[in-house]
Amino acid sequence: MAKRTSLSGFPEWSPAGRIVEQSILDQLRRTFELHGFASLETRAVEPLSELMRKGETSKEVYVISRLQERNEPERSTDADMGLHFDLTVPFARYVLENAGQLAFPFRRYQIQKVWRGERPQDGRFREFTQADIDIVGMGDLALHHEIDLPLIIIEALGALPIPPVTVLVNNRKIVQGFCRGIGIEKIDDALRAIDKLDKIGKDAVVEEMQSHGISSDHALRLLELATIRGTSDVTQRVRALGVEDSTLSEGLDELDQLLEQTRERAPGRVVADLKITRGLDYYTGMVYETFLEGHEDLGSICSGGRYDSLASDGKRSFPGVGLSIGVTRLVSRIISKDLVTASRSVPTCVLVAVNSEETRTTSNTIADGLRARGIPTEVSPSSAKFGKQIRYADRRGIPFVWFVDDDGQSTVKDIRSGEQVAADPHAWQPTDDDLLPTVCRQG
Amino acid sequence: MAKRTSLSGFPEWSPAGRIVEQSILDQLRRTFELHGFASLETRAVEPLSELMRKGETSKEVYVISRLQERNEPERSTDADMGLHFDLTVPFARYVLENAGQLAFPFRRYQIQKVWRGERPQDGRFREFTQADIDIVGMGDLALHHEIDLPLIIIEALGALPIPPVTVLVNNRKIVQGFCRGIGIEKIDDALRAIDKLDKIGKDAVVEEMQSHGISSDHALRLLELATIRGTSDVTQRVRALGVEDSTLSEGLDELDQLLEQTRERAPGRVVADLKITRGLDYYTGMVYETFLEGHEDLGSICSGGRYDSLASDGKRSFPGVGLSIGVTRLVSRIISKDLVTASRSVPTCVLVAVNSEETRTTSNTIADGLRARGIPTEVSPSSAKFGKQIRYADRRGIPFVWFVDDDGQSTVKDIRSGEQVAADPHAWQPTDDDLLPTVCRQG
Repeated sequence: MAKRTSLSGFPEWSPAGRIVEQSILDQLRRTFELHGFASLETRAVEPLSELMRKGETSKEVYVISRLQERNEPERSTDADMGLHFDLTVPFARYVLENAGQLAFPFRRYQIQKVWRGERPQDGRFREFTQADIDIVGMGDLALHHEIDLPLIIIEALGALPIPPVTVLVNNRKIVQGFCRGIGIEKIDDALRAIDKLDKIGKDAVVEEMQSHGISSDHALRLLELATIRGTSDVTQRVRALGVEDSTLSEGLDELDQLLEQTRERAPGRVVADLKITRGLDYYTGMVYETFLEGHEDLGSICSGGRYDSLASDGKRSFPGVGLSIGVTRLVSRIISKDLVTASRSVPTCVLVAVNSEETRTTSNTIADGLRARGIPTEVSPSSAKFGKQIRYADRRGIPFVWFVDDDGQSTVKDIRSGEQVAADPHAWQPTDDDLLPTVCRQG
Repeated sequence: MAKRTSLSGFPEWSPAGRIVEQSILDQLRRTFELHGFASLETRAVEPLSELMRKGETSKEVYVISRLQERNEPERSTDADMGLHFDLTVPFARYVLENAGQLAFPFRRYQIQKVWRGERPQDGRFREFTQADIDIVGMGDLALHHEIDLPLIIIEALGALPIPPVTVLVNNRKIVQGFCRGIGIEKIDDALRAIDKLDKIGKDAVVEEMQSHGISSDHALRLLELATIRGTSDVTQRVRALGVEDSTLSEGLDELDQLLEQTRERAPGRVVADLKITRGLDYYTGMVYETFLEGHEDLGSICSGGRYDSLASDGKRSFPGVGLSIGVTRLVSRIISKDLVTASRSVPTCVLVAVNSEETRTTSNTIADGLRARGIPTEVSPSSAKFGKQIRYADRRGIPFVWFVDDDGQSTVKDIRSGEQVAADPHAWQPTDDDLLPTVCRQG
């Protein structure tokens, strides 16, 4: 096998980096489960027809085909299939397929890889892990879920060894109602233009709206709305713009409730930002984006919103609200900037030294006993000189080396301090910090 | 979105099924980490050239292409890529790419989905999860690793709520040396034929060998070897066949050491079976297959072996030994036969009832307190009549419903027994069995 270099856009971590990622995934799972979200996994592939329902995303899809069928497409017996590009579309499909067996409102989390055929760049990958939570109702879903969900995300991200996050919130009803109130007809085009405000600037947004037949007067009024941002007087400032519309007013009431509760339950962490619209047109209520303090250039690390009709079989609809953490984007940043480091590159806490191959069994027995008490333990792969066995531990960050003398007496050496003490294999216990690898925030 | 039926070969579990799968993955991880294996994940895709190095497997590969490039292959800018069909090939590639940063012998576990474009059938899927452990050395790797690895697998599978397993072992040196000793030249063809003995029977195996130019006399002598099976006098019976070859004799010595140690460390669980050869020709020492008692029809649920030159960059070689658990095959069987069931379908232990939407905050505060002490808790999604709120818990198997009266006094009801007692939200603790969902072996 010739040596190859890594594929751009398909990140792989070192063993120590993987410990960082794994600890983040473990912590997210812990928070999600504490809040009663059930784990789900869906298959990696979906029918292409499902994946292309949103025209905008179709360009990013990887299609799969069996090798022997590739050159004879007319013989294909499989439906066209592609790799999922997010976890929302597959989840909606899963809910429809299994509605009879699920209990609604249904809370699930889903941590899986997704794939997009995009041009790779900083924070943007072709293969990456998402961690999603969604709550889906049958027929209806109360507003409080739209308030709870960003708070759960703040709790989940707040438990990680990373800088604090800010969740930016808007309610699509506000922008949609406002557009209707001032007479903009092409609402979806207007929303998509507004969504690009930070990227392309005011002038370009106005231009884009004009290209869709929206007057510059309308565009400028909408920009007045879109540039409102804050934690307290936001809805008053919108109302002061004097636009009347029932959807607008519903959206403002909902945003008021969200801001009031989040001010209390997570002070300073949730900010209304009325330019946030999320490109996808399936959102119908609150929409969210999340930024990491000091790393705003990374873009949103957790986005989502409320959707009323993503999943519907014609008879029943399944409205939901969901948020998706871009785990790989986050992990890639904290690894590349050394924001978080692992205390060692292996799970092993103790290396049991081997005096000679003839007495390897003695070392195996000691190791079995330590493992039975939950202490990750390896036996030295060779019976080389102790110096070499200690170097084996040192290179991996294994903190302790265990020795047994010919009389069966054990000593354990902390190779960081050099301290070596007599130890009882049935009782010796490392500190909690040494038992398993830990990850720490740096600086 | 129209209702769709599931795709054959791409299994998805119910929330309760997923709890079973997750508990199995957690337990495997725990055992692997106790033995010092570091977690790794590799990308899902590999260059097609890498995946097709073994001609036999190329037919199973799914190739991927970007949608917009599909109809203009001449414009393709990406190298041809396919989804990995196992975790060994990607791991070998990872080792070569990162050899400078890794410490050898390197122990890693890897739990990921793999894909094969095969015809789906019972126990055979197009997408499935494998859990692999491998130990890879640089230059050399001592025999004891080939003895330790099946013992670790027996410990890992033995910790699961499933029937006991038997690991069948052979050493390729025995078959290869035996072939050479009696004068068979087409050793790979002979091995591949022998590998099919259980499936196609003796006569067909002899026929297949003859079709490769192996005489029927040679074929029958090889079958004498291949039908030897046992835990103790195996190597004596081989030696009694009177074939002389240095590789054969080396293989027999190694197998003797393995049988002696496994008899001691896992009595009755490891059986030598000299017809086990594993089809893939990269194995060079011990080979393993694992069967679940009472479910032998499922085929091997964990296979692998020793390989000397899977990973080599021309200058250095990285010999290794690995075993791969077919997690989906195992989980599919235990779910479909109800061998193991989950105590509930959600992580939630407590549902906090809501008296009215005005007092939802009170219920939120109770829930926050319980979660802070590690108790998975939901707040009732609606403030409907308590009967309806209790039904919400009951449908999900949530064992406890928590009530707060207007004076702020709490009571907690075990909805299985109906018992309701006063409870302090800062002190109340469920039993360990109720805290998290448990999975139990049935019958």
